[in-house]
Amino acid sequence: MNNRENNKHRTTVSIYGQQYTVVGQEDPAHVKEVARIVNDQMREIKRRNPYLDTTRLAVLTAVNVVSEYKKAEAEQRNKDS
Amino acid sequence: MNNRENNKHRTTVSIYGQQYTVVGQEDPAHVKEVARIVNDQMREIKRRNPYLDTTRLAVLTAVNVVSEYKKAEAEQRNKDS
Repeated sequence: MNNRENNKHRTTVSIYGQQYTVVGQEDPAHVKEVARIVNDQMREIKRRNPYLDTTRLAVLTAVNVVSEYKKAEAEQRNKDS
Repeated sequence: MNNRENNKHRTTVSIYGQQYTVVGQEDPAHVKEVARIVNDQMREIKRRNPYLDTTRLAVLTAVNVVSEYKKAEAEQRNKDS
């Protein structure tokens, strides 16, 4: 292993029945927590919209997460000012 | 239109070549900004990983967004404490 690879982790997670290997400097515990959140959100959206195909489900999961993030960010800005 | 529907918006956005109609109390400008962010992230991840199919691409976009969100949240907690 060379220096450049020394601080890289390979973490394999399962999301909605598929395996993903994440390579990077992220702590494996962080990657696993993130995967669990995405997996849970996909299952929740699927429960409410059983007709959705997996691609649209994954896109809507990303949309939900970004939406929550932007709202939290705006709230934080209001608190800070 | 009845009262229950009065404060609901229908916003149609295009993400990665597919149309999505978002129904809810969100401001259409918020929904459009969120869609633009997801679309841009999907195109960026696809540029770096051209072999990815659209489902895996969308799942990895959700993973990226949640990962950034959790890191920003942790940073904010450190600032607050």
